[in-house]
Order: sequence, then C-alpha cells, then structure tokens
Amino acid sequence: MPYFDAASSAPLHPVARQALLAALDEGWADPARLYREGRRARLLLDAAREAAAEAVGCRPDELIFTPSGTRAVHLGVSGAASARRRAGGRVVVSAVEHSSVLHAADRFALTEVPVDRLGRVSAAAFAGALGPDPSGEGAALACLQSANHETGTEQPVAEVAEVCREAGVPLLVDAAQSLAWGPVDGGWSLLAGSAHKWGGPAGVGLLAVRKGVRFAPQEPADERESGRSAGFENLPAIVAAAASLRAVRAEAAGEAAGLRAMVDRIRTRLPELVPDVEVVGDPVRRLPHIVTFSCLYVDGETLLHELDRAGFSVSSGSSCTSSTLTPSHVLRAMGVLSEGNVRVSLPMGTAAADVDRFLAVLPELVSTVRARIGAPAGPAAEPEAEAGEPGEPLVLDTLGRRCPIPVIELAKLLPRVPVGTTITVLSDDEAARLDIPAWCEMRGQEYAGEQPAERGTAYLVRRVS
Amino acid sequence: MPYFDAASSAPLHPVARQALLAALDEGWADPARLYREGRRARLLLDAAREAAAEAVGCRPDELIFTPSGTRAVHLGVSGAASARRRAGGRVVVSAVEHSSVLHAADRFALTEVPVDRLGRVSAAAFAGALGPDPSGEGAALACLQSANHETGTEQPVAEVAEVCREAGVPLLVDAAQSLAWGPVDGGWSLLAGSAHKWGGPAGVGLLAVRKGVRFAPQEPADERESGRSAGFENLPAIVAAAASLRAVRAEAAGEAAGLRAMVDRIRTRLPELVPDVEVVGDPVRRLPHIVTFSCLYVDGETLLHELDRAGFSVSSGSSCTSSTLTPSHVLRAMGVLSEGNVRVSLPMGTAAADVDRFLAVLPELVSTVRARIGAPAGPAAEPEAEAGEPGEPLVLDTLGRRCPIPVIELAKLLPRVPVGTTITVLSDDEAARLDIPAWCEMRGQEYAGEQPAERGTAYLVRRVS
Repeated sequence: MPYFDAASSAPLHPVARQALLAALDEGWADPARLYREGRRARLLLDAAREAAAEAVGCRPDELIFTPSGTRAVHLGVSGAASARRRAGGRVVVSAVEHSSVLHAADRFALTEVPVDRLGRVSAAAFAGALGPDPSGEGAALACLQSANHETGTEQPVAEVAEVCREAGVPLLVDAAQSLAWGPVDGGWSLLAGSAHKWGGPAGVGLLAVRKGVRFAPQEPADERESGRSAGFENLPAIVAAAASLRAVRAEAAGEAAGLRAMVDRIRTRLPELVPDVEVVGDPVRRLPHIVTFSCLYVDGETLLHELDRAGFSVSSGSSCTSSTLTPSHVLRAMGVLSEGNVRVSLPMGTAAADVDRFLAVLPELVSTVRARIGAPAGPAAEPEAEAGEPGEPLVLDTLGRRCPIPVIELAKLLPRVPVGTTITVLSDDEAARLDIPAWCEMRGQEYAGEQPAERGTAYLVRRVS
Repeated sequence: MPYFDAASSAPLHPVARQALLAALDEGWADPARLYREGRRARLLLDAAREAAAEAVGCRPDELIFTPSGTRAVHLGVSGAASARRRAGGRVVVSAVEHSSVLHAADRFALTEVPVDRLGRVSAAAFAGALGPDPSGEGAALACLQSANHETGTEQPVAEVAEVCREAGVPLLVDAAQSLAWGPVDGGWSLLAGSAHKWGGPAGVGLLAVRKGVRFAPQEPADERESGRSAGFENLPAIVAAAASLRAVRAEAAGEAAGLRAMVDRIRTRLPELVPDVEVVGDPVRRLPHIVTFSCLYVDGETLLHELDRAGFSVSSGSSCTSSTLTPSHVLRAMGVLSEGNVRVSLPMGTAAADVDRFLAVLPELVSTVRARIGAPAGPAAEPEAEAGEPGEPLVLDTLGRRCPIPVIELAKLLPRVPVGTTITVLSDDEAARLDIPAWCEMRGQEYAGEQPAERGTAYLVRRVS
C-alpha cells in the first residue's frame, strides 16, 4: 500500500530501527552520571552528536538535540531573537515558513517576505525587510526554510544568508524537509531539523547554533544539552536519529535521481490526464520527492478519502480537509488554486510502479468526485458564450457554502450571462479569496477584486470571453 | 552488576520494550492525518492516553503527553501560574522540590516552604504560605512533590491539597518518583510524571490538568496535545510508556514489599556496619525503594568511584560529586550531613543478594576512602578530651580546601584543645555550612553559628566535651 506522505513523517529507516534497538539496551541510563551505565550512555550521546554534526556541517559543540523539530525551531527562534532584542524586536520570515516558525516568530514583531507564484522568496526582497521598519524597529533574526514542506520549492538560502550577513542579522534555516538530501549551503547562523522527516524516529529534533551567534535561552534553567534544551535526553532515539541520517545521506544521490524522475513524470502527465489541474511549486529548483497540485471543482477531503480507499496516503492544503477552515498559508502566499489540493511526497524506496498506478487511478477518482459534487464537466462541456449586450450586474449568493461550491456555482452561472457582465460572488468561505481569482486566471475571465460585504466578502468577476 | 540508581532512570521494563517495537511498526505516521496509517497512529495514541489516564486517576481528556517529565513540569507550572497572574504572582513550593520545579517556579516570585529534618513539609506551614505575603502578593500556584527524589520521603499531598483548596490555590503535584507505585491521592489540580522513572522509555512525560483548572499555555501555538505541548507526538515511546505504567502497577504491591524490606535492612544495618553514618529521610512515610545516607570524613566522588569499581551504580547529593560545588538543595533544606552522601534507589526486581553484597563491601570501601584522605579513625580512636582551662580562641584556616577536608581538619584539631575553647573554622566551601553543624550534632559539640569573614565564612565551634 503506497504511502505518499513522507513530508509529514517518513517511514522508519531500517538503520534507525536497528540503532534504536541496540541503544535501548545500552543507552537507557542518565548520561550525566559517572557510573558505567552512565558513561556508556554518554559515549553513545557524544558519538551521535558527532555524526549528526558532520551531516549538518557544523561542530559537535554547536549542535544540540531537542525533543522534536518544532521544539528546535521554538528554542532557536526564541533564543536567537531574544539575545538580540536591543538590535530590534522584529523577526523576518518568508511567508511560506512552516507553522512552527511562524508561531515562534509571532511572539516578536513579525515581518513576512512575500513569495512568487512558485513559492520562492527573492534575496532582494529579503534584504529589503532586514533594515529598520518605518517605525525604526530593527530585525533581531531572519528565518528561511531550505525548501518548502508543501510544494518542495527550494529557497535561495545561500543568497539570503549573504544579505543577512551584510545586514548583520543572524539567519535561522528550517531544514526539516531537506536534511535527508544534503547539508544546507551558505553562511547560516542557526539550523533546525527533525529526525522523523528523514526516516529517523519521532522524538528527536536538532538545533545547530554557530559559534559566535548570540543566544539567550528563554526557558527555565536546565543543565542538559548545554542549557539549551531541557529534559532527560531521549538517548535511544537520538542514537537512531544520527545513525539513520548518516544512512539516508549515503543513499541520497541515488534515491534523489529516481524520485526526481517519478515526480517529473507526475508533473508532466497529470495535466494531460486530469482536466483543470494546476501543478504548483518550482518545477526545477525543488526537492526531489515532493509534488503538489490542485484540482478545480474538487472537495479535497473527499478526494483524499477516495485516494485512501484506493490505497494512497497523501495530504492536502485545502481548507476543506482541515479543521481551520482556511486553505494552507503556503498556497495563500503563492496565490494559487487551493481547492482539491493534493501533496504527494514520495518516501525513499518508492516503486515507479506505484507512481504509475497513482496516475492510472487519479483521473477516474477526480471525475467521480466532481460528478458527485455537481461540478461542470470541464471547459469543453460548458455552454457557449451568450451573445448580446452586457447584462445587469448579478449577485451570486454562496454564503454558508464551503469550498469548492462557490467556485462551482460561479462556473455554472458565468457561461449563462452575456460577455461583459459582472458577477458579484458573496462568500464567507476563506478559500474563495484564493480560488475565485485562481479560477478566473485558469478560465481567462477578469477578476475585478474584492469588497467587504454585509456578510462575508464580495468577489467581483467580469465575463470577458 | 547491580544498578542502584532507579531514581535517576529505571531500566527499561520488558513490556515497554515490546510495546515500543510493535508501535515502531504501527505508529510512525502522523496521528493528525486521516489516511489509514494516520488513523492507526491515532488509535494507538488514544488507547495510550486512556491507559495512562486510568493509572494517573484522571480523565483521558485531562492528560497530555510531553517530551519529558521536565517539560511536563515546565509546561504545567507556566500554564497554571500564568493563568492566575491576577490572583497573584507567587508560586509556593516545598524547599525540596526537584530542580525542574524550582527552576520553572523561579520565573515567578518564589516562596519556599521549609521541611523538617526528615525532609517533610507540614500542611500548616504550606497553608501559611498560601495567603498574601507582606507586600500583598497572592499565590498563583502551589507545587508539591508526592515523594522526594533524593530521600524517598513522602509528602502529605492530600492534606496540602486540602489547604490549597481552602485557599483557592491550585496544587501541582510532581509525581515523577511515585507514579510507578500508585496514583496520587487527594484533590490535586495538576500532576506531572516521567516515563523513564517507572521503566518506560525516555522521551515521554505526562501532564494532567483537571477540568476546571485555569490553564493558559505560554508557548508558541501548536495544535498537538490540545495545544499544550508542541511538536510531533513521539508515539512509539508514548505507547511504550502507557503499557509499561500499567505493567509496573500490576507488579507494584509485590515489588514494594520486597524492596521495602531490603531498604529497611540497609537502614538498620548500615549504622551497625559503618561508623559515623547518618541515614537520612523519613524511615516510615517513604517510597519503598530509596534510601540515602551520608558518611562522615568521606569524599563522595571517591566513594562513588569505589562503589562503581565494585559494581554498584549509585548517585550522590554531595557537593564533591557535582560540578556545582554545592551540596544538593534537598540535603541543605533538611539540614543534614552532606559529605560522603550516597543515594541507593533499587529498581524493581532487585535481588536481596545484591543488597547483601552491597552491605558486605561498603564498610571496607568507606574505611579505605577515609584512610586515603587522612580522616580520624572514628570517635573511639580520637584523643581523649584535654583537661584544664578553656584555651584562647583558635582559628582553623581551611580556605581553598573542599569537602570533606574542613570537617576532617576540625575533627583532628578539636580533641587537642581544652574543653570550652571556641574554634573559628574559616571555609569557602559551601558544604561546610551544612557539614560543620552536622558534625557538631553527631559529636555532641556546640555549634555557635556562622559569621561573614574576609574570605569565605567563619563557623564557630565550641568544644563542650
């Protein structure tokens, strides 16, 4: 049964399992104790730190283990930004950072650097955000992911590190998604990672803080991990994390080539196989194993359910699949279609035949889901444009209806009004803000902006063809 | 090789190992996902939460898992105390809490309730600390351990919970040391535990927050664990923690009886076998498996090293074995001898023969260590009291000498001065503050208090017999 959600959590690497088992026997004691069990635990911890530091590209005394990638990010952001409060209260982040970075940075004043439609920041835009803001507030810290967790788009970390260096602002890199594939180039100051993303066990994150980077831990004092991450070390998991990072790195080049070819095949074939699909993210500068696409007129949750029934485990950034009722902030920042969104992230060792089978079943599943929700059958089947004068402005009330219904109703109404007519779509679904403009672009219709309405928001669409 | 340091970290229970292995295969996916691997993980997480809640004596929705006991304490103290900031800024703790509690509480205004010489607080003293302090500052939270980690002394939690209830102050119980043995009685509001203390794996703590207790998480937003503990759940370890807690509870009554008998034997035999030993902690109201004693004229680190060479792994609260240069705050708060301190904490399944062997080798090891450091050979061998008039006040300069040297020098000098003479011991070793008065009490000499000195502190001892 193919599991295509490695970006959420990768299956445990066999080396991680072996190392964990061995360390359960050898490494359960307190590494701070001086008796033999403690000394043995300390040796294991030191060896794991050396192996992890080598893979990260830092010194062992620059690296600490944390209980998760999230904790690594929280501790890194708070420790680095707090140490530089005098230099400024702002934390500069890309708009597509992982939620753990955004939430940690949000405790300071947050400056978001926008991304382009491929989900990529520019070093120039980042540089512009590093100086004092209009109120004179400087930047304490900058944060940039090495690659995006939803789209796989790689960020120009080395270039951004250079502009940070010039501005004298430390850069924290969230390398959670990329660490399996190689170290992060460039002059970063702090780096965070998460073992279960590379095939290591849950319960282990890592945080590297380069020597010379100011760091002021903000949590209650604790002597573990150089005073930077409190609590008894999860040693068996740490040993397994380090061993598996080394193992996946040894396999990374070969795996990357194979997975990149599979993802390229999905990116090429999908638009040919499924009508009204938008493949998002950078087609070239991307992680080898992630591809994300959105399907017009599709309820993301239903599609995920159908894929699960067909044996495929994937995730989605659609609002209709989460409890938050908003589409993923990544898709929002990119300004791309969010409905029917599917993220495929292939674990190492994925068989090409499974990808073929995915491409074989997806078209049928999408059309089933579309038919069930009453979607238009696609541009070819939509009614011809009516001739004649532009009609009166029309209001399409979709209040209380969730994604993808507002877009479906719009797609049904528009062909029945004369060219030149403006339709005001009323919606209180957050996804509409993203999906109505995206639909207009896909259909070559004019999106004329949004206005506040008594309830929800009014989205203006003018039929132009 | 007998491992007698269960209070630091218990060896992994076989049930924990089995459950961990099974959950590595079944529970590596993200329990927040809706596909089959995620649903399977969610089921495991729910079942673990139910089992742990039953063992703790709370509802499953009152219990969250954290990455360690330390984190459970940190999150519990900050969440509960912050939620009641309007009621007061103080956190009331016993003076013998675990350092994780003291450090977490220290971020608020800290009120320490003293303990008696057995290490026990009184409910009356606790009650006195709960009202507004002289400046009018109220108590936001009270913290009390169920039993002490160094001495095993049990605290009157139910009585203290009652006085807290009357004062309207929530009580957080640190149950890290006792949870293996049974639930904590009484009307506590929050409770923290640590899996590796009961034979579960590292990487799992638990925090129970009773319904109705105000709680305001202070960390960056995160949807895991009801928004109270950030980061991807360490599911295999959580499953193992819950399964092993249930398993040790099933064995607790039988194990407790056996270990209690062994500890009683140590408590009785030690003073018969080793001269100048002080066994500390409550002899009756105590955990079954912990016993702590201190040996006059012994360097704790050397004794631990000798015990390790003889195959016994124990820990110590002596200053001379830690990097802090101060004796454990627990021994300090109790006012007992700290030099040559040894904590024996027996894991479940300890063989009585190992305890016998410990009692057989200890006397020889202690006398070897004493001989090496030049200690007096014991009261019997010390010179007779000199007759005659009290002599001139004497100064004994031990500046720069570490524990147990100042006490040894005092013990050598005192018999050579006339009865009635006052000796001023100059010392800059923190342990002297505890050990000089303790020595006077053991020897029946008069301790006349301390005074600031140009360097270090002057301790006044008057020979009375």
